[in-house]
Amino acid sequence: MHTPMIDAPRMLTELTHLAQIGAGADGAIHRVAGSRADLAARDWLSKTMKVAGLTGHRDEIGNVYGRLPDAEGPYVLLGSHADTVPAAGHLDGAYGVIAAIEVLRTLVEAGHPAARHVEIVAFWDEEGVAPESRGGLTGSTALCNSPHIEDISAYLELHVEQGPRMEAGGLDLSPVTGIVGVERYEVTMRGQENHAGASPFHLRADAGRAATRAAAALMPLCQDIDPVGIIGNIGACTFSPGAANVVPGEATLQLEVRATTEDLLQQLRTRIRRDFAALAEEEGCTCEIRRISAKPVAAFDPEIVETVEKVCRAASDRVAPMASYAGHDASVMSTRVPTGMLFVPSTSGISHNVLEHTPDHQLVMGAQALLEAAVSVVQAGSALPALTVAA
Amino acid sequence: MHTPMIDAPRMLTELTHLAQIGAGADGAIHRVAGSRADLAARDWLSKTMKVAGLTGHRDEIGNVYGRLPDAEGPYVLLGSHADTVPAAGHLDGAYGVIAAIEVLRTLVEAGHPAARHVEIVAFWDEEGVAPESRGGLTGSTALCNSPHIEDISAYLELHVEQGPRMEAGGLDLSPVTGIVGVERYEVTMRGQENHAGASPFHLRADAGRAATRAAAALMPLCQDIDPVGIIGNIGACTFSPGAANVVPGEATLQLEVRATTEDLLQQLRTRIRRDFAALAEEEGCTCEIRRISAKPVAAFDPEIVETVEKVCRAASDRVAPMASYAGHDASVMSTRVPTGMLFVPSTSGISHNVLEHTPDHQLVMGAQALLEAAVSVVQAGSALPALTVAA
Repeated sequence: MHTPMIDAPRMLTELTHLAQIGAGADGAIHRVAGSRADLAARDWLSKTMKVAGLTGHRDEIGNVYGRLPDAEGPYVLLGSHADTVPAAGHLDGAYGVIAAIEVLRTLVEAGHPAARHVEIVAFWDEEGVAPESRGGLTGSTALCNSPHIEDISAYLELHVEQGPRMEAGGLDLSPVTGIVGVERYEVTMRGQENHAGASPFHLRADAGRAATRAAAALMPLCQDIDPVGIIGNIGACTFSPGAANVVPGEATLQLEVRATTEDLLQQLRTRIRRDFAALAEEEGCTCEIRRISAKPVAAFDPEIVETVEKVCRAASDRVAPMASYAGHDASVMSTRVPTGMLFVPSTSGISHNVLEHTPDHQLVMGAQALLEAAVSVVQAGSALPALTVAA
Repeated sequence: MHTPMIDAPRMLTELTHLAQIGAGADGAIHRVAGSRADLAARDWLSKTMKVAGLTGHRDEIGNVYGRLPDAEGPYVLLGSHADTVPAAGHLDGAYGVIAAIEVLRTLVEAGHPAARHVEIVAFWDEEGVAPESRGGLTGSTALCNSPHIEDISAYLELHVEQGPRMEAGGLDLSPVTGIVGVERYEVTMRGQENHAGASPFHLRADAGRAATRAAAALMPLCQDIDPVGIIGNIGACTFSPGAANVVPGEATLQLEVRATTEDLLQQLRTRIRRDFAALAEEEGCTCEIRRISAKPVAAFDPEIVETVEKVCRAASDRVAPMASYAGHDASVMSTRVPTGMLFVPSTSGISHNVLEHTPDHQLVMGAQALLEAAVSVVQAGSALPALTVAA
């Protein structure tokens, strides 16, 4: 049968509806996992799925699922997360969830045989910003540790890029080859707190100077190892005691690095420890580097990446594969099931911000590509004799 | 008459006593201006002065004064401040106050004619760390704006250096030539908050990177203008929003510079504005520099500096003049009356810290030099005919 087309106005309307749940006066969305707004959004998603004839059920952790009541596993799972960072935009996570609903609803309405082998999900707490969260990806991790993972044959996630690479390259769609590994460190420089005026530069042990020099050195250090495959960030910097007239005795950096291969991550670890220790010593300080978290590199399933690339190239000639520099539930899912992702561009590369935006025609193109990729993966699934019979 | 000698054990004992008022379990002193401990210290100082036969009276702002009940102005004022920063050592301010008490008490006990022309003071709120303070030097500023300043012919302040220069130079005593000008600035870099992983280095407007590069550039900038006469400090650094995975959209530095001449301060202003703006532009950010406070350079009275140097050289052959890089009540006093200071060394240059220390023999030497300088200044005072008659 021919591939059905999604209802673009319906999808965009539902995206707008979801964006109103937890929105502040400026339109920024506050839907941190477990917040009242997040729970309200999950109720609305569950109701919307039920209206579409799907189960709209919830698991113990808080993930919301939808599938046909007579669906038959194993399922190709489509989805993303429904929670947000504070003051978020309306696409991160939400777009992949709403598109998944639209895809399954379209398949159901068209009477497409793949509909019975697709499940959709709105994951719990991807962002990890709630105080009780252990770093996010909570819902997908819980799924991977539950018996239900045995019912999943593949996972597909549609997402906004959250970066400027696609827009800069003039792309409509990108099949995603994998997700960078992410490591977070707390860097603490310790020197000697002192009277700022009375101590000359050369007799100080200025922890603030050691820390800001280290922060300024991160970008050249990353680019020296690999100008493309590594990204880093100093997200926070604090001096103690923190008064204008006191040389800081202690200074702390929150450092994050992302790399496309485990080898690059290893090189980063070595260089950061070596270079920061040398800088600290030059300033008469000590440097302690504590790893806060580490997520390994996720390489997606080559066959699924190829399938996603094929449907993307059929939809547009502005397509190129890329690695994701942001973490996603797909990284967790890829540890248990064949996984793939596709990206649409982010205007000006802005995300985690009320200005987050993607042109409507690309949002629609992405959702249609998700539908086609899902159907292809269902049809390719050798473990799906039921489909073969039905088709 | 010959110059009387101070009672060294008595002075050291009183210094120890004062250090117990507001001391925590670790010995660090918490006597922020206006705190319960500060008020208790002032009560004790007033009582101690009264026991010594002095007035021990308080003015409206909270300065504690002592002089003979039959004293006769104009007075040579000796003193320092009794308040501390949080977690302070036992010498900053306190040493100059206790030494002033010891000097006047010694002159009184010896029946020295200069005694009637000396007043002592424990100033209110030099440090300016209380939330309601407007930058400190409150007590001396109030005195300079009160009618009582007309009764003061000169001001002498004994203080610990609070820096490592004297110890490094093997000095016992330093006549102080003046106090550096101090300017404080808040530097705000503004860029674009963004997802840390998804935005490549070259497409960011990273306010944190602009700020840490500026912070790291301060020392070379100062030393380029004048390697001796300038000192600078970045005392605080904050990133907003401050999460490991978010490129900071805004970053703020608390910057302080001190210089021995107004010309150096002017050069600093120009260079900081120019260099920081250029760095911000390189990072795609804007730079706002707001002056928080400015204290001009204080040049002490040449005759008093000479008198102080003479008594110091008579006491030790380890003497050299220096500028003070820390602010003192003497800077305010110098705007109204001929003023001088003398320093004793600070072990390891440590101050504003529980480890603050000066060897006892130098504390005693400093107090004796203060006495001799006070007597010399009283005797040199042409406006003191009463003394000439009495002597």
